[in-house]
Amino acid sequence: MTIRVTVWGENVHERKNKVVAEVYPQTMHGTIAGFLNKEDGISASTVTLQDAEHGLTAEKIANTDVLIWWGHAAHGDVSDAVTERVAEAVWSGMGIIFLHSAHFSKPFKRLMGTPCNLSWREAGERERIWVTSRQHPIARGLPDHFELEYEEMYGEPFGVPEPLETVFISWFQGGEVFRSGLTYRRGAGNVFYFRPGHETYPSYHDGNVQKVIANAVRWAHNPEARLLKPTDAPNTPVDKALEPITERGPRLHHDGQEGFR
Amino acid sequence: MTIRVTVWGENVHERKNKVVAEVYPQTMHGTIAGFLNKEDGISASTVTLQDAEHGLTAEKIANTDVLIWWGHAAHGDVSDAVTERVAEAVWSGMGIIFLHSAHFSKPFKRLMGTPCNLSWREAGERERIWVTSRQHPIARGLPDHFELEYEEMYGEPFGVPEPLETVFISWFQGGEVFRSGLTYRRGAGNVFYFRPGHETYPSYHDGNVQKVIANAVRWAHNPEARLLKPTDAPNTPVDKALEPITERGPRLHHDGQEGFR
Amino acid sequence: MTIRVTVWGENVHERKNKVVAEVYPQTMHGTIAGFLNKEDGISASTVTLQDAEHGLTAEKIANTDVLIWWGHAAHGDVSDAVTERVAEAVWSGMGIIFLHSAHFSKPFKRLMGTPCNLSWREAGERERIWVTSRQHPIARGLPDHFELEYEEMYGEPFGVPEPLETVFISWFQGGEVFRSGLTYRRGAGNVFYFRPGHETYPSYHDGNVQKVIANAVRWAHNPEARLLKPTDAPNTPVDKALEPITERGPRLHHDGQEGFR
Amino acid sequence: MTIRVTVWGENVHERKNKVVAEVYPQTMHGTIAGFLNKEDGISASTVTLQDAEHGLTAEKIANTDVLIWWGHAAHGDVSDAVTERVAEAVWSGMGIIFLHSAHFSKPFKRLMGTPCNLSWREAGERERIWVTSRQHPIARGLPDHFELEYEEMYGEPFGVPEPLETVFISWFQGGEVFRSGLTYRRGAGNVFYFRPGHETYPSYHDGNVQKVIANAVRWAHNPEARLLKPTDAPNTPVDKALEPITERGPRLHHDGQEGFR
Repeated sequence: MTIRVTVWGENVHERKNKVVAEVYPQTMHGTIAGFLNKEDGISASTVTLQDAEHGLTAEKIANTDVLIWWGHAAHGDVSDAVTERVAEAVWSGMGIIFLHSAHFSKPFKRLMGTPCNLSWREAGERERIWVTSRQHPIARGLPDHFELEYEEMYGEPFGVPEPLETVFISWFQGGEVFRSGLTYRRGAGNVFYFRPGHETYPSYHDGNVQKVIANAVRWAHNPEARLLKPTDAPNTPVDKALEPITERGPRLHHDGQEGFR
Repeated sequence: MTIRVTVWGENVHERKNKVVAEVYPQTMHGTIAGFLNKEDGISASTVTLQDAEHGLTAEKIANTDVLIWWGHAAHGDVSDAVTERVAEAVWSGMGIIFLHSAHFSKPFKRLMGTPCNLSWREAGERERIWVTSRQHPIARGLPDHFELEYEEMYGEPFGVPEPLETVFISWFQGGEVFRSGLTYRRGAGNVFYFRPGHETYPSYHDGNVQKVIANAVRWAHNPEARLLKPTDAPNTPVDKALEPITERGPRLHHDGQEGFR
Repeated sequence: MTIRVTVWGENVHERKNKVVAEVYPQTMHGTIAGFLNKEDGISASTVTLQDAEHGLTAEKIANTDVLIWWGHAAHGDVSDAVTERVAEAVWSGMGIIFLHSAHFSKPFKRLMGTPCNLSWREAGERERIWVTSRQHPIARGLPDHFELEYEEMYGEPFGVPEPLETVFISWFQGGEVFRSGLTYRRGAGNVFYFRPGHETYPSYHDGNVQKVIANAVRWAHNPEARLLKPTDAPNTPVDKALEPITERGPRLHHDGQEGFR
Repeated sequence: MTIRVTVWGENVHERKNKVVAEVYPQTMHGTIAGFLNKEDGISASTVTLQDAEHGLTAEKIANTDVLIWWGHAAHGDVSDAVTERVAEAVWSGMGIIFLHSAHFSKPFKRLMGTPCNLSWREAGERERIWVTSRQHPIARGLPDHFELEYEEMYGEPFGVPEPLETVFISWFQGGEVFRSGLTYRRGAGNVFYFRPGHETYPSYHDGNVQKVIANAVRWAHNPEARLLKPTDAPNTPVDKALEPITERGPRLHHDGQEGFR
């Protein structure tokens, strides 16, 4: 089975910033989709903020097994409607991977329920990423640590909920640490946050970073059928109760009435 | 130190539904504040949906250590601004307890990042609540299980993230189960969900239910100072790095510039 | 890739108890291996307590991707050496599934670090198993609940650590609840506990139970290479530090000396 | 209420190693008990490996609310009987704090169910400890990070289960990271692991380290009554079932018979 990946790119700095355009002549999302398309069993396409509905139409979402999100300068331009559509798709079973500055994207904050803040420094310093969960599927084929010579620093405290698993922790040259790989589940959807990828550095050209993202795609993919109504709260009538019961006491609702929301 | 509790009541059914008014002549929020005020070290007040800013002004929130939330019929009438204010206060360290149908309240959904849905049946059936985490502070003084003879059924799957701890699980006469006591942490704030409390039944007059809520208040209370800026993402300049580093490579940001959000 | 499963059977009641022999004429482990061998990509064999080294020689363990454990009457007859070998294999990446009364087996208690106790009643009562984690790989293809008309009751509190995920919760006719499907990770190994399977009832002939066990095999399988030395605590010499440092201060250890254990 | 703390010291290097004796003239356990006894509401005493039953008689354990464990050179000299007694006390509700090289102590490994291994280097390098869980009770009164100029390095991967909460992560001068403050619950007992404290360095004279340990004592203390039989698996007879049921099907056990263990 082929995993259908959609790489969502903000696509702002690639067009406006000469440095970024030189590092990523194929754009960032294009670069990510490019190396994923070299993987067996993965088929990746790209959409951007500037597309109609930011490229995330109901149809596109329905045909996406795993969504990858990179944004930085224009989080506020993402519509609330698309944010909710993405969240609902995750609850239904779509996998999602948030990269780097997507920690402040609307969908990530929506799914975490926390500020998702951190400290940061843009100084091209060394980052060393340690595997903390040995033989985790997302760390497949990696050494016990790897380095990115030039990266932006992200420092703790990272304002996210306790994860299911901490897969990576980063060491920074300037003295900080950061939980760089975190797994969550939201509804039927698997969520992975991965730290590297400041747009002025060539992190998405790095072989280990590419390996993590490809691994994460496979990990995040839920092959089960997408839930049709992930937010439904069904009423179970008394006469269909699994064990025989008799209705007692006062009621607010009439038979067949919907609950309050 | 006295824990300052604010009980937020939707205060709709107490006024409009005769049954509810008879079960809770002091209102539901009034009943909850009433038994909490008999506890040593707890001082509880009430506010309602109908108050200006739903009673949750910045000042009231600043003077609330633990907020208790009960709502059902009018979740949609709670303003987004107050919802965000509550979420920020939790991230800053305010404790919060969501009761029963507050599973669908805006603040709970905001903090969970999930649909928070469930199945339900209003039949006055027996609920038996089992303690699953022995000697947990929220289960203090309880037997290993207790019963509510008349309750609404809530059934799994409950659309919430994996909790830090599962403290209670309910058995229902009609054949369902439900995770009735769940702990979370969101930022510096402790969050507890507790299931019982359908408005047509006298659950908040029950001694064990009252014990759980009083215990949960003490558990949720974070005595640390409230965080002043829980959503800040501070920049750490290169010349103040903890380890001496030299700036390298291209930059997006100027010195002293704020990050994108 | 074929997943190599070893089903470990205590094989006591099948030989000594007429009822059990009639319910499981192919033995319990034989029955489990039998339905697994009908699955694509799974190859299952059986070993028993009575085999040399209980069938779990170093070679057999090395050739097992997922071990399934059922025991009840003779937990104490399992040697500590084999228990440690199993635990080390799990830390190295072998998956393991504990069924029913294996909650009190030596390997389960070893891996949990807790008493693993529960309450119980043998009355042939109805058990209804609810899926609490929608679209979880272990719940693949299941309805939202299923029933076993005759089962032993296991009741909370279940003396285990908080799991990574709660996948199933059981309702019992006599009034109890139980967390029936729990996931853990221990080292590189995935661990699943699944409740049903009292030996006098035909639970392992039930299609849904069989589906859960087959799903769990796929979930527990870690395709990564087994760790060679899962308990090693390597010394990293100063002259091989990743960042240049100078040794300072007093030392306990000489160069190349092993650490204390 | 006064929290009764017992500090367990291995007490080997203090007597045999001149460096350690000079850094800790009052011994390590004596130093720890000393600063704890300056705290309001804490009363600390010490016992050592060399005492009868390592100082952890049934009576001493019964009168200990929180046990602190430091050991390094002589883990193997701790008897299995005392290890089990400690584990049972934790399951009953005794708090326990493991310091530094106690990661390889028998009680820690017993409670974790994992190898508890790590990488290490003894070079007197700088450690910087970051708070990852803001306003956590164990981080009370701490800055967002603090430094120990001379420490032993411990590096990831740390062979422990996913914790309830990650409270601290360390940065090391030589390039490693480590999860330095981790919380667990085992039965009714709270467990905290805290990394610093190599015996040749003065870490337990550091004010921030002392603050963490005092905070952890208060966090780990479970004021509930100790469970009397934390490993019991009680049978619930059919005629005392909470809901009326009739015994059906074949049985293994006679009325009143104990279960297998």
